[in-house]
Amino acid sequence: MKAAVMTEVGKPLSIQQVELSEPKSNEVLVKIKATGVCHSDLNALHDQTTPTPTILGHEGSGIVEAVGSNVTRVKVGDKVALSWVPYCGTCEFCITGAVHLCESAFGPMFEGTLLDGTSRLSQDGKQIYHNSLLSTFAEFAVVPEMSCVKLPDEMPLAQASLIGCGVATGYGAAVNAAGVTPGSTVAVFGIGGVGVNAIQGAYIAGASKIIACDVKPANLEIAKQFGATHTINSAEVDVEEALKELTNGLGVHFAIDCSGHTAAAESAWKSTRKGGTVVLVGAFNPEQTLNIPAGGFHRVGKVLKGSFYGDTQPFRDFPMIAQMYLDGKFKLDELVLNRIELNDINQAFDSFHDCGCINVGRAVIEFKD
Amino acid sequence: MKAAVMTEVGKPLSIQQVELSEPKSNEVLVKIKATGVCHSDLNALHDQTTPTPTILGHEGSGIVEAVGSNVTRVKVGDKVALSWVPYCGTCEFCITGAVHLCESAFGPMFEGTLLDGTSRLSQDGKQIYHNSLLSTFAEFAVVPEMSCVKLPDEMPLAQASLIGCGVATGYGAAVNAAGVTPGSTVAVFGIGGVGVNAIQGAYIAGASKIIACDVKPANLEIAKQFGATHTINSAEVDVEEALKELTNGLGVHFAIDCSGHTAAAESAWKSTRKGGTVVLVGAFNPEQTLNIPAGGFHRVGKVLKGSFYGDTQPFRDFPMIAQMYLDGKFKLDELVLNRIELNDINQAFDSFHDCGCINVGRAVIEFKD
Repeated sequence: MKAAVMTEVGKPLSIQQVELSEPKSNEVLVKIKATGVCHSDLNALHDQTTPTPTILGHEGSGIVEAVGSNVTRVKVGDKVALSWVPYCGTCEFCITGAVHLCESAFGPMFEGTLLDGTSRLSQDGKQIYHNSLLSTFAEFAVVPEMSCVKLPDEMPLAQASLIGCGVATGYGAAVNAAGVTPGSTVAVFGIGGVGVNAIQGAYIAGASKIIACDVKPANLEIAKQFGATHTINSAEVDVEEALKELTNGLGVHFAIDCSGHTAAAESAWKSTRKGGTVVLVGAFNPEQTLNIPAGGFHRVGKVLKGSFYGDTQPFRDFPMIAQMYLDGKFKLDELVLNRIELNDINQAFDSFHDCGCINVGRAVIEFKD
Repeated sequence: MKAAVMTEVGKPLSIQQVELSEPKSNEVLVKIKATGVCHSDLNALHDQTTPTPTILGHEGSGIVEAVGSNVTRVKVGDKVALSWVPYCGTCEFCITGAVHLCESAFGPMFEGTLLDGTSRLSQDGKQIYHNSLLSTFAEFAVVPEMSCVKLPDEMPLAQASLIGCGVATGYGAAVNAAGVTPGSTVAVFGIGGVGVNAIQGAYIAGASKIIACDVKPANLEIAKQFGATHTINSAEVDVEEALKELTNGLGVHFAIDCSGHTAAAESAWKSTRKGGTVVLVGAFNPEQTLNIPAGGFHRVGKVLKGSFYGDTQPFRDFPMIAQMYLDGKFKLDELVLNRIELNDINQAFDSFHDCGCINVGRAVIEFKD
């Protein structure tokens, strides 16, 4: 099959022919139909710890082409969105509902294999590593059964491809992690593919004021389409002051940082009212610390929490998101910025460099029949 | 009446005769029977912002002597424990159950008055300030009706006097704020009057491992009486390493810092497992910041929260604690370190200086008939 191979850290991807072996037990062969190019792919391309050669891509949709033994959740012909956090269902985290914290996928994720520690990808007999257990920048993928979430037949595949990463992470940060309530006030810091879906989640959850905070006017404009009632350009005004003004001096009920900048996260903390909740979604520089004022910390009763993958339960949340989309209540069309072919994938990576920061919309690679 | 008057910041208290006027609407005259000397009283004595002259004391019990107009919750002769966080019952915080965050008491608390902004205390016609809306270092006190929590007649008064501050704050940090669950692992940092009650709360909530962390061997010994299954002297060993060892390398489910030291709070964060909860109870130096590692924050799904007054609902929690005591299920006797008279109050303050750090037990001042 044809795939975009990452041969070396930092080098452009190379379109090559590679081999994919049959799915083993509890694995599924998916014919990839669409895959989003996520900022995390760019990070992986430049990450010295990414095992190479590998095939990136972790935001995808497709049709089940074949199933390995013991597969019961999907059958040939099913339309699926892919999750890169397959979970075991039996560990301490899974059985308390926090399936996004399940550790079973983490070893394989960093080692570039499937769940059994081996690879189905190769070229001329030489192993190619998987990435995020999916490797969707290819015509086919063998993935864990627990990564395959069946969607309604009428769900369009380009839109479906986005659900499994940025959409779920942002939407879930607002709905699952923050638990945004009707009538509440919500600030979202960092309006990219994740942040705009946190806005969307807050809107769907019935928040009364949804305040988008970013430094890019274009992104703030897009945030309005997704439900932001107010925008703050934090390059131009004091965002903490502006948020206080919008909330009668109290601060917001919920603040969600999707920027990955500690300064924004600290602003999110300071801009939240007594008893409020701050959710940090962005991946910070590991060298940094979050510096939270210690004075009065015990007295304000705030909650600070991290959210991974939007605290998503894929088999509950992906079909709900798809159904809301089909009912006209969830925006996905607007996130499909460009539809490109696999051959043009490096242009999508270049566009990240061009804009110098996160994009709201995605380039989506489509595979024609 | 006789009272211990704080005439100036930092000076020993002075036993003097003062006047107390009648309770106004929604106020209660309480004959004080016992009052604990809390470390916060020592802090207030040395705080330049404490309005003087004032009468300290915010941990007390007594008998209702008279009631002002509109008082319905208590009647003459009732035995009461006092709460220094009376709440309005109508604000955003109260109606969502967070009565400990109600702001109605905060202005008066810092200004040294009762809820209506005036004082009932005076001497030779000159106003004396209230403290924490209670001022229990005196034979009588006029307090808000919402500070009077009726206890069973059989509740002994010295033990009852402790419920309204250190006991509620520590117990509530474990039970209300952390939500310690049966079978879980809990670390408590800082074993003073609050910390030992966090230990007690974790024990009552059914935790399986309760690990007391402090630098004072004597306090660690006392922690065992209150339910600690393990102790760590953090002056002698690496507390983070030791906690990991006690929890199969995972870290504890719940960590509660009662020390007020940011280094301990940061250890509490690092010693908590993925998906765990860290509750910070201690009042930190306002000049400091909490420095939390930013790398991977979003991925561990931990919750960091402040807890004020143990997230206590006094009219629910005080009688429950008293009943557990009467049923032999809650330790209060062990917290009454010395029984002294009001005349000897400065000795209790001196004992804080002597030990150089927080004490587990309290000096309790008793007023004989």
